[in-house]
This record gives sequence, C-alpha cells and structure tokens, in this order.
Amino acid sequence: MTYCVAISVNAGICFISDSRTNAGVDNVSTYSKMHTFGRDGDRQIALLSAGNLATTQGVIGQLEKDIRQSKRQNLLTIATLEDAADYVGEINVAQQEKHTGGGASYEASFIIGGQIAGEDHKAFLVYPQGNHITTSADTPFIQIGESKYGKPILDRIISLESALDTAAVCGLVSMDSTMRSNLTVGPPIEVLIYETNSLLVGRRYRYEESSEYLREINRSWDARLKEAFATMPPISWSENWDASTGQGEG
Amino acid sequence: MTYCVAISVNAGICFISDSRTNAGVDNVSTYSKMHTFGRDGDRQIALLSAGNLATTQGVIGQLEKDIRQSKRQNLLTIATLEDAADYVGEINVAQQEKHTGGGASYEASFIIGGQIAGEDHKAFLVYPQGNHITTSADTPFIQIGESKYGKPILDRIISLESALDTAAVCGLVSMDSTMRSNLTVGPPIEVLIYETNSLLVGRRYRYEESSEYLREINRSWDARLKEAFATMPPISWSENWDASTGQGEG
Repeated sequence: MTYCVAISVNAGICFISDSRTNAGVDNVSTYSKMHTFGRDGDRQIALLSAGNLATTQGVIGQLEKDIRQSKRQNLLTIATLEDAADYVGEINVAQQEKHTGGGASYEASFIIGGQIAGEDHKAFLVYPQGNHITTSADTPFIQIGESKYGKPILDRIISLESALDTAAVCGLVSMDSTMRSNLTVGPPIEVLIYETNSLLVGRRYRYEESSEYLREINRSWDARLKEAFATMPPISWSENWDASTGQGEG
Repeated sequence: MTYCVAISVNAGICFISDSRTNAGVDNVSTYSKMHTFGRDGDRQIALLSAGNLATTQGVIGQLEKDIRQSKRQNLLTIATLEDAADYVGEINVAQQEKHTGGGASYEASFIIGGQIAGEDHKAFLVYPQGNHITTSADTPFIQIGESKYGKPILDRIISLESALDTAAVCGLVSMDSTMRSNLTVGPPIEVLIYETNSLLVGRRYRYEESSEYLREINRSWDARLKEAFATMPPISWSENWDASTGQGEG
C-alpha cells in the first residue's frame, strides 16, 4: 500500500510520500515514490505514485526515456501541467495493458504537480483510467493510496492561506495517522516543498524510520490529541433523559 | 453507507450507529441501524447493521420471527453471545442467498454485543460470510461500514480502562469525523450504553440532525484539534539541510 498527498496552497505545493511497497505482508520493500523533473527557471514537476510497482516503475521509466530520447512530448518540453497530466495518464494506461492486458491488480495512480513558467502552480491526480482531477479552493489537497485515515486532519486544518510549513506539518500528521492504522504504509517519508513562482528545486527531506523528528511528530500529536479530548464537553445524559422508555433526546 | 462502532471496555459496552441509508446519492433515507433484544435480569443484546438494506431488514425480520415463534434457537434463549454471533451469521448468509443467489451487492455485516447471565459482556463483528471476530485488550472496539476516517481517534483514546462516558464521547467524535468525510453517513445518531453485569436495558439516546449536543461535539472538536495543531513543533528544516543536493535528513 501507499500514502501520498500533495497540498497545493497559495504559497506553493507540499508533496509527501511514504516508501513502503509490499506484495503480501511477507514481502515488504522500500522504494521512493517521489520523482522530480525540472529545469531551473523553466519548470519544476514532482510525480508521486501509488499502485502496482511494475506499472509505476514502467511509467517512470517511459517518462525518463522520452526525455533522454528528446521525444516530441516529454516532461521537460510539454507546454502545460494539464497536458503533462494527460500524457502521464496515457503512459499509465499503456503500461497497465502492455504485459498483462490490464485489470485491477495492475492499476496505478499518480499525483503530478509543480509549475511551468507562464502558468500557475497546480497539482493533478491521475487515475488508473488515465483521466485526472485537480485541487480546488475548498479542497486544496489530493491524495492517492490509503487516503481515508489521514483525511480528517487535512479537512480541518488546510486552506489556501495555509503556510507551506503548516502544510508540511499537517501532511506529516496525516501520514502519522495513516502509518498507525495501516502497517503497509511506512518510512522513509519524503517531503518536497515547492515555492510558488520560484521555478527552482524545492526543499526536499527524507525522514528515515529512525528519524527523531518523525518520532517527535508522533509523540506530540498523540499527547496533544489526548489533551484536546480530555477537555471535550461531557455527554449530556441527564438533559433529555426519559426514564420510562430508556430513550433520551440529545 | 453506514458507520457503526461498539466500544467494549471493562465498565460495559457503548454502541453507536448512524441512520442514513442510500441507494445512490439521490435516494437517501433514514433507518435505525440499532436493534435491541433482552429480558431484564437475564440478557441484553444489541445488534448494529451495515450493508444491503434488504439483507439487514431480512436478518432482523428473521431474528424477530424466531423469537415470536419460540424457535429452538432464538436471541432470547440462546446460551452464549458467541452462539448468537454464529446464529446471526447463518441467517445473514441465508438472507444474502435467498432472493439473489448472493454476491457483493447483497452483503451485510453486523455488530452483536451485550451480556447473557453467567457470561462476561462481549461484542462480535459478524462478516458477510457468516464468521465473526471479537474485541481484545489491545483493540477494545469493532467497527462496521465506513470505518477508516473514525479509527485514528479510537486507536489513540480507548483502552479497557476507559469510562463509558469517555467511550461515548470518543465514539461521537469518531462519528463526527466520519460524517464530515462521507456524506452517506448521517444523523440521527443513536447511542446505547450497557453497564457490565447490570443485565438491564441501558441508557439509549438519539441525536437528531438538529441536535445542539451533536453540533457542540462538532464545534468543540474542531476548535480543539486546531488549537492542538497550532502548538505542534515546527518542521526542522535547518537541522540537516544539505543545500548542494536539495536534500535534508530529518
């Protein structure tokens, strides 16, 4: 399994990915799911991947090959990020069908985001079927893989006005909740921060399993959630309690 | 969709269920998913349901019919809760196959819990296949339906030593996170509290959409989560930042 998220706010985009892959729980490996393509001053593009590892490696391989061979269409020359999302979608569908004829087990999905000179910064989710969606002011993040455990905190904290460091910490808390509930999501955790209109390589970090900061995120959030919960208003049993029916109304 | 949870702690069991059913988002209705069976002093059993509405209603109907007809095996005479979970599992499988021959769209799952005189209080999850699991000291809760959004808070807060009121508030926070992320989970929210060894009908509450308490849970938790997040340690960019590669180590 996998968990990747891209948080696209006014100040830029924060990309976060885990690095655990598994074919059954007895066959667990570590692969980076974050790839970057760019030329300073012209474009910076990040690609996060989830799903069948042969498919995702096939897609990354093809994207790199198209760059090496200077194909008419490649990530270093393509005009817009939306075109790039289409292009990744086509390669994704082709790779799924290449060896296997397709099918759910060979599916992969991607997040592609960043900025190309002359365009706004953007992030897209590319589905296994090759189509894509982008973020909105109301939902300024996209997720692939095991997305549900880590969604509530993003829903509550992130808005277009969030600072990039806030987005990064929130994304790491979201990742922490996911790792706690799904063993097949795990470190190293990679974080890439792209700043709007910089068109330069962003800050990139890799937190290993032994990372003191990752442990601090885990400990701090656990303690703060418990403190927050301890001060919740008590349940109002007495208020509308109906002893005759054993039913009350909240 | 549905979200139901049973939290089984030393002090008793807290059952919580939503009441929204849907066949597509344009066909949304309200049905209680919480049914109780009991005789004071002898047994108290609660049943929560998720899945195909025809199947769950068929199962509840059969359970009630077996009681009315005083069948050899029924929920008011069965010897243990484990036998009751087996029995619900058999009826569940039979109902799925009755009209349709079975298949994923007709599946249903159940939580059955409570206490029978002479036994400890217990809760079981009954799968569509008819088999079942129970809670443990490490995982003192079971969930059916849309379980992922609301799991992290249960993981962090609930232990066997939790008070029943704590379990109820935590379950409502878990329900609140789920409702926020999945539109097909919604009020009225029902809460039933069974106290260990009472063998009496527990406290039962129903929070309507308009419930001031439900809104307070939502507001309070939202505010507390934001406060908790605001005091998280900042991300440690500078610490291990490697400017030459654009890579740092956390």
